[in-house]
This record gives sequence, C-alpha cells and structure tokens, in this order.
Amino acid sequence: MSNEVINLKQKAQLITDHWSPRVIASVDDSYVKIAKVKGEFTWHDHLEDEFFLVLDGQLIIEIKKDDKTESVELKAGEVYVVPKGVMHNPVAEEECTLMLFEKKTTAHTGDVKADLTKDINTQLKPL
Amino acid sequence: MSNEVINLKQKAQLITDHWSPRVIASVDDSYVKIAKVKGEFTWHDHLEDEFFLVLDGQLIIEIKKDDKTESVELKAGEVYVVPKGVMHNPVAEEECTLMLFEKKTTAHTGDVKADLTKDINTQLKPL
Repeated sequence: MSNEVINLKQKAQLITDHWSPRVIASVDDSYVKIAKVKGEFTWHDHLEDEFFLVLDGQLIIEIKKDDKTESVELKAGEVYVVPKGVMHNPVAEEECTLMLFEKKTTAHTGDVKADLTKDINTQLKPL
Repeated sequence: MSNEVINLKQKAQLITDHWSPRVIASVDDSYVKIAKVKGEFTWHDHLEDEFFLVLDGQLIIEIKKDDKTESVELKAGEVYVVPKGVMHNPVAEEECTLMLFEKKTTAHTGDVKADLTKDINTQLKPL
C-alpha cells in the first residue's frame, strides 16, 4: 500500500459500491480512505476525530449539537473535521466522492451496527 | 480551528511564503497543513510518516533508498506517503500547493535545523 503514488481520481473510479470506504494509504496509526457515497448513511459517533475532504460532488453532514440538528454543507475541495463523540450522519443527494482520514482503530459506524457497516478487512481490500 | 468548513483553495490563497506550512485543522494527534512551495527544501527525515497531497502544481520528492536517490513525481490530485525514517527532499520547479498530514509531534525538518525551519507556533498562526 505504501511507497506508491496514488492518483485519487483514478482510485475513485475503481470504487463501485456506495458507503464502502477503501483504504488507500497508511500514515502511522491512521488510514487514508476513499469512499463514494449517495443517499443517507446512519447516525453514529466515534471515539476519534474524523476528517472529511470532498473530492467530487457535495456532502451534507448532519450533526447533533445540544439536542438540535445542524447541517454542514461541503463542496469539492472543502474539508470538515467531525470531533470525537459528536453524533453525525453523512448525506449526499447525488453521488459524492470523499477522502477520509481516520485512526486505524476507528469503527466505521461507531457502536452502531448498520446494514452499511463495513469491517476493516473489506475496507483494506486493494483497489 | 475546528467546527468550520475549510475551503482548501481559499485558504491556500492566503499563504504568501514558500515552505511555510500552516495548520488548517486538528485531527486527534495529527495536524492537517497547507503549504506553498517553490524551489528546493532540505534533506531530512522524521520519526513519523508524512502524507503529501498535491492540490495544485507539481512536486518532486527526492528519496534516499540504499544510498541511491530516487525521484517521486506528484501531480495535482496525487498522494504519496514518505515512510518514517526515510531521508527525503521536496522540490518544486514552479509554485506548488500541498496538503500535509503530520503528527503534532513531527518536527518540520526532522533533526535538521535549516533556514527554512518553521517552529510549530508559526505554523499554527491562523490564516
């Protein structure tokens, strides 16, 4: 996985499933992942921060704050970090391509086991 | 620094100095940084891996491997991770904009104290 130049667009073209992040690089105790998403994910939180960069399309991250729901809107080239412990739910009206930076220990959907939950071995399958 | 949407291009436009990375986000024990670079940096290594994403322009990362020097060429949208302990020297013929992921503990130029070395407080100055 390491020691190679990774073209994000080319890698993204190899992804066919929505909400199925794929690891493209390892950086110390974190993974860099690419995901294609469309529709609604599932409300969850993590023990660690989660970094989102939109590569293509638009992403809405719904966030629970003081029992209210806020929406963060991200266009291509925009970054947002969901802080640890914050309940969030990514939503994309149209297909959207993301780069994620997560700790290797981060559970994809937190404690929530959803139909969309992918284990780390699925995420580690080479593209 | 957190809880805001960060537009990478807009942030990069605020950077005027070359080889002076600026922290744009904190992700657990790592920083996300943007840098504009032009010319040659300095040979150094780190105790941690270093993630490079070229946002604009072209970057060459010269790398020492078994006493030989190899060149890794990165275009916009391409990623490379320099593994911990590997001597490397970034070079850009023309101005190039980068996004970096580094541990908060990572020394900018490793053990090397070069004219270009920026301390973390300089890197943390808000853009």
